[in-house]
Amino acid sequence: LQHIYITNSLIFSMVEKPTLTIGHKQYLWLLDWVTLGDDITMTTVALIEYADATGDVLTVYDEIRRARKSDFINNFWKALANNPEQLRRTWDQLKIVMGPGSIDPLTKEMIYIAVSVANSCSYCIHSHTVAARAKGMSTDQHSELLAVIGMASHTNGLVTAMQVATDTEFMVE
Amino acid sequence: LQHIYITNSLIFSMVEKPTLTIGHKQYLWLLDWVTLGDDITMTTVALIEYADATGDVLTVYDEIRRARKSDFINNFWKALANNPEQLRRTWDQLKIVMGPGSIDPLTKEMIYIAVSVANSCSYCIHSHTVAARAKGMSTDQHSELLAVIGMASHTNGLVTAMQVATDTEFMVE
Amino acid sequence: LQHIYITNSLIFSMVEKPTLTIGHKQYLWLLDWVTLGDDITMTTVALIEYADATGDVLTVYDEIRRARKSDFINNFWKALANNPEQLRRTWDQLKIVMGPGSIDPLTKEMIYIAVSVANSCSYCIHSHTVAARAKGMSTDQHSELLAVIGMASHTNGLVTAMQVATDTEFMVE
Amino acid sequence: LQHIYITNSLIFSMVEKPTLTIGHKQYLWLLDWVTLGDDITMTTVALIEYADATGDVLTVYDEIRRARKSDFINNFWKALANNPEQLRRTWDQLKIVMGPGSIDPLTKEMIYIAVSVANSCSYCIHSHTVAARAKGMSTDQHSELLAVIGMASHTNGLVTAMQVATDTEFMVE
Amino acid sequence: LQHIYITNSLIFSMVEKPTLTIGHKQYLWLLDWVTLGDDITMTTVALIEYADATGDVLTVYDEIRRARKSDFINNFWKALANNPEQLRRTWDQLKIVMGPGSIDPLTKEMIYIAVSVANSCSYCIHSHTVAARAKGMSTDQHSELLAVIGMASHTNGLVTAMQVATDTEFMVE
Amino acid sequence: LQHIYITNSLIFSMVEKPTLTIGHKQYLWLLDWVTLGDDITMTTVALIEYADATGDVLTVYDEIRRARKSDFINNFWKALANNPEQLRRTWDQLKIVMGPGSIDPLTKEMIYIAVSVANSCSYCIHSHTVAARAKGMSTDQHSELLAVIGMASHTNGLVTAMQVATDTEFMVE
Repeated sequence: LQHIYITNSLIFSMVEKPTLTIGHKQYLWLLDWVTLGDDITMTTVALIEYADATGDVLTVYDEIRRARKSDFINNFWKALANNPEQLRRTWDQLKIVMGPGSIDPLTKEMIYIAVSVANSCSYCIHSHTVAARAKGMSTDQHSELLAVIGMASHTNGLVTAMQVATDTEFMVE
Repeated sequence: LQHIYITNSLIFSMVEKPTLTIGHKQYLWLLDWVTLGDDITMTTVALIEYADATGDVLTVYDEIRRARKSDFINNFWKALANNPEQLRRTWDQLKIVMGPGSIDPLTKEMIYIAVSVANSCSYCIHSHTVAARAKGMSTDQHSELLAVIGMASHTNGLVTAMQVATDTEFMVE
Repeated sequence: LQHIYITNSLIFSMVEKPTLTIGHKQYLWLLDWVTLGDDITMTTVALIEYADATGDVLTVYDEIRRARKSDFINNFWKALANNPEQLRRTWDQLKIVMGPGSIDPLTKEMIYIAVSVANSCSYCIHSHTVAARAKGMSTDQHSELLAVIGMASHTNGLVTAMQVATDTEFMVE
Repeated sequence: LQHIYITNSLIFSMVEKPTLTIGHKQYLWLLDWVTLGDDITMTTVALIEYADATGDVLTVYDEIRRARKSDFINNFWKALANNPEQLRRTWDQLKIVMGPGSIDPLTKEMIYIAVSVANSCSYCIHSHTVAARAKGMSTDQHSELLAVIGMASHTNGLVTAMQVATDTEFMVE
Repeated sequence: LQHIYITNSLIFSMVEKPTLTIGHKQYLWLLDWVTLGDDITMTTVALIEYADATGDVLTVYDEIRRARKSDFINNFWKALANNPEQLRRTWDQLKIVMGPGSIDPLTKEMIYIAVSVANSCSYCIHSHTVAARAKGMSTDQHSELLAVIGMASHTNGLVTAMQVATDTEFMVE
Repeated sequence: LQHIYITNSLIFSMVEKPTLTIGHKQYLWLLDWVTLGDDITMTTVALIEYADATGDVLTVYDEIRRARKSDFINNFWKALANNPEQLRRTWDQLKIVMGPGSIDPLTKEMIYIAVSVANSCSYCIHSHTVAARAKGMSTDQHSELLAVIGMASHTNGLVTAMQVATDTEFMVE
């Protein structure tokens, strides 16, 4: 007996295991999930799937796939693809900004996460945490990143509440 | 003829050079500046100067001086010193969080800047930019830090405006 | 065989189509959805349904229905109705502020979206995007709105990170 | 010998005391200050002074003076007065919201400060800190308010960075 | 016939009542729910359950249980436990900051909520609203808290948009 | 007798008029102001003046001057010029995004202001308010813009505090 369950953005496919009926936690066996997809979405714009991409959108999608050595196109690009020029501009700019330079790519991802946290961008936190891990962020580094974000948020709040005047020693000469 | 000028948080001491009267820009010679200080302040709490510090506050001030190998105590600590316990807690915690670990101290400062920018904490941006430079941040690294902050802010805005649903590929297993 | 599925705020009713068992995506046929409703809610206050509204709350609900030529009362008002005076004040004020004036209603909705994005208010982004569409926002206009929001977020981040001093040319005379 | 000094929004009037020339800090004696005023302002709208107020603006100004038992009208109202209807609405609403109720007026001011800090509204932090003091906020209470704001900012950052899912125990029944 | 349904972070267990088939809203009877748990999570770090806690984590968990006179450990602590030192520091600090002092515990919770709202921290709003209720926040007080948060957000926006200069009367002497 | 006064980012040049000594407000006569300039700055990066611009920076500066039919280069570009590539990218992108399209340029400026207010970017609010005025924003339109920003901030706060669940009617089909 197979069931399909829908969450906010997922469809879960599940098989009930009658032999595991002691508690429903053990009872659950997760088979698969898929994106909620074409029919309905909580996104305020339609998502343009790879299969439906043409022209400039398809070109950028293929560049993304090649750059990432993966067929996976994440929802951000599928949403942005409603404006092909903006898709192109954003992808080109992101490659330059996040690419090799005087700051290493992993550090850049951690900075990206820090900004995204302070801006409460849930999607961005998820996607760049995954990207940081893919670039080698260890569990210890993630812990320290969180600690720095927490500490910075803390003193940001204190400084702003006290309206501390900038020390003259901090001025650029 | 010496003049003293006051800005938001500074007092400028200036000497008019009568031989440099062609334009007032050349005319200006900056002698000195000091913090606006005890009499009035835009800070919502009083600043406790080193000379007025006693007990636990003095102990923390001395720890800060030793740790930084400098007599300079910045306004944040002087403001926080109104609550000696909080001064102690914050200093102790900051030392642990920003100290050596799996993320290097310069990277931690750049993450601190990123959070402070997204939280619009002007004082924090100034103080941690100075700290990052002191820990070796090059001009190129500062430029790239700014570029990453700009790019993250940009896509944060886009993602939030489009309410992009988190891809299932980003879930933690 | 009908199934009812619950997400964050929805109940899905679904019929399994045994003839469509090739893949579970094809397999799914969405019948209906309803708000999660009275029993449980993620909202931190109870929602007051139209059927339960009395007195001032009912009066405002009827005004909302007449103004919008629809029976639909969205959750914001149902939540706000716990404080009938605040419901009245907010509705009265919103009518004035968002009503006809020197800025056209569609532009006002786009400004509302822009603020809501920067404040990370997911509900507000959804409701005002729907309102903007209802007032005629085209797909192209939505794309350009997103581009302006992205660009503004980008330069906001850069300016704040660099702590750029306001040019005197920008002062009001 | 009297000097007049201008800061961001102030004009300082000062008298140099030649007998106090040991250091320029002692040397300074602050006589007076006035708002920078009519000629130039960093505010993006003109400030409407009491002397220039007419009609509805004057009526609200007089209500503010009576309510506060003081002739002082702060800049927020002078700026808002460019839109007399909005001045009226905001003043009326503020009186209701901040007036006596099930939360005492001092607590309301502290909540106002907390929101203003998280929104980085410098003016609001200053004005409501002054208001809270006028309503009896002690130095200890201010210290604890700051500590709670700091702690909340800290855990807000941690929770957002970790994207912690809401416990079902927190749902409203 | 029992069904298990999964939402964003919950698993619902449901029994179809065949006698209540008039409409699917009546049809639903909610049996139980449990946290989504160990297998998958939207949180960017793993959750450490009480049963899996050892050493310092277990000690803090037990302190939390004793302090709250409840076995319930909420997800924030389970997520933070990935860094046992940070768990210890945060718990110790929170006890001090939110404990008895010159501001009463309920007021502290309301201030915490206010900061969390302005920082868009959904989890924090839920958990501290529950905590405020547990400490005696009445429905009226919750309504007034919301009104103050709304009003502060409103004038924060106005003041920032008009860039109102701080009145000299607000300076600390 | 001429005096030069320094504020946060300005140098004022002033002439004392001994015939106007009734009150120091009348006494003040503002001669001139200039940007604080090369020697010291509150900006965290150096400002690159037109006279010092070379290569790509000079090219972009000239494009800005031609596009705006003015010799004035505002501080944002002078600060950004430390990274010539980023200067080029940002200027090119801004021209495209803020240029003619399905949303008129004045509306785009108002949206830009709205985002900048919610992000507390003081410089951006000033510069885009000036730009909006230059593109024809009337005093009435500015008033209404402020009212919409205030109202949106207000309901953003309420919605977030109440954690209102998104109505299914708002989903994109």
